[in-house]
Amino acid sequence: MSKKRPFLTERELFENGHKYFLPHVSIDNVIFGFHENELKVLLLQWKENKRWCLPGGFIYRDEDVEEAAIRVLKSRTGLDNIYLQQFYTFGDPHRERGKHSTTKPKAAKAASWFMERFVTIGYWALVEFSKVVPKPDEFSEACSWSDIDKVPELILDHNNILDKALQSLRLNLNDYPVGKDLLPPKFTMPELLRLYETILGKALDRRNFQKKILALDILERLEERKLGGAHKAPFLYRFDQRKYERAMKQGLKFGL
Amino acid sequence: MSKKRPFLTERELFENGHKYFLPHVSIDNVIFGFHENELKVLLLQWKENKRWCLPGGFIYRDEDVEEAAIRVLKSRTGLDNIYLQQFYTFGDPHRERGKHSTTKPKAAKAASWFMERFVTIGYWALVEFSKVVPKPDEFSEACSWSDIDKVPELILDHNNILDKALQSLRLNLNDYPVGKDLLPPKFTMPELLRLYETILGKALDRRNFQKKILALDILERLEERKLGGAHKAPFLYRFDQRKYERAMKQGLKFGL
Repeated sequence: MSKKRPFLTERELFENGHKYFLPHVSIDNVIFGFHENELKVLLLQWKENKRWCLPGGFIYRDEDVEEAAIRVLKSRTGLDNIYLQQFYTFGDPHRERGKHSTTKPKAAKAASWFMERFVTIGYWALVEFSKVVPKPDEFSEACSWSDIDKVPELILDHNNILDKALQSLRLNLNDYPVGKDLLPPKFTMPELLRLYETILGKALDRRNFQKKILALDILERLEERKLGGAHKAPFLYRFDQRKYERAMKQGLKFGL
Repeated sequence: MSKKRPFLTERELFENGHKYFLPHVSIDNVIFGFHENELKVLLLQWKENKRWCLPGGFIYRDEDVEEAAIRVLKSRTGLDNIYLQQFYTFGDPHRERGKHSTTKPKAAKAASWFMERFVTIGYWALVEFSKVVPKPDEFSEACSWSDIDKVPELILDHNNILDKALQSLRLNLNDYPVGKDLLPPKFTMPELLRLYETILGKALDRRNFQKKILALDILERLEERKLGGAHKAPFLYRFDQRKYERAMKQGLKFGL
């Protein structure tokens, strides 16, 4: 699907980027990382002013918007084949780099297209963060994970974009399954519960959760049990691949 | 919130619209009408080629995207204070009027901005259709309701936009309450059930629905009963205003 694209120097991007990209439209990716019961988000730090922001980018004039989001995800994380969810488009008229002098890269001062208003389309992804190799883009000097509750003040409306993404991720748990790329292929019910609790940021009733998630009919209980614990060995489960994929298309009715 | 805007002739719009509006970004509204257990959608018919489309519009350079959606909703329906839900942004690179000659208004042939690629932001609204006075825009000769299952072939990807809006409206029933502007202030459980069944396009289990919706704690059962039926008079309910509004902000866990 993706195409070879020309390499643009920073100067070429600022001065002539609008010849390659749609003006006024951008994408921003909220990349959530999950690992050992922690939820994190991937942030970039700008070279010029050291401020933090979400990884984002522009859309080539002949490129599908979702392809652009996938391209940005891949170039920041190295990951392919990750489920990306479009969650909201941010259309505040004050979304202009020109109005926020602290976010102005020097070289961009004369670049009108870059400094004008952008409507930005937000996507989120949920990835196993130990698989990610964070990589800064051309404007940034750092790309790293932040704990979800320790995110600094970000540029423009990026804190708001992050909040809305987290809200969407949580609502999404009611409508779609989650976990296939975040848990080992065989897992216990307590492990699955912890995944949901971590994303939701709150404790869930264990019995109620088990009853509801089994009723969704996407799990297969295996004959083997997890060994090694002090207590009675818990059952192992795995996702039924076919049913999981169908649920990703048709949606669920979880009612968490 | 809304501002007085200059009146643009059709010619001025085609030739100089990009001076007033953001190029490459538009909004499209999917306006669902509900009345007497029927679900309908509001469509426009273009003057030039008689083809049907969704009501949409452009975004003034200093206008919030949501304000633009509200402005278009108001100008097509006369309605104010309607809940609008942004549901998806459509970013296919082939969304260009220039590539679809049958949708090309004569006067627009020379107007490059109008014929170029547009990323469109979709909103849906659900209105009591007897309150609506449908009004064509400057490109259309008709504005009227279509039964949801008798929608003709629409321009560009508008059938796809409609499908996605309906899907979003249905998923939304799991997460937010509905009905305050669509039912009389006092209603029976069968009337509320029919509203949900009509939107979902399928029958629901009566007892299960009643149990689940009462558990949401947004309804108040009144002392009075509905009179006039042959059977035992059913109880009347109304929405608890404060709880309904809180649920619109915080979301529900319906699990329909």
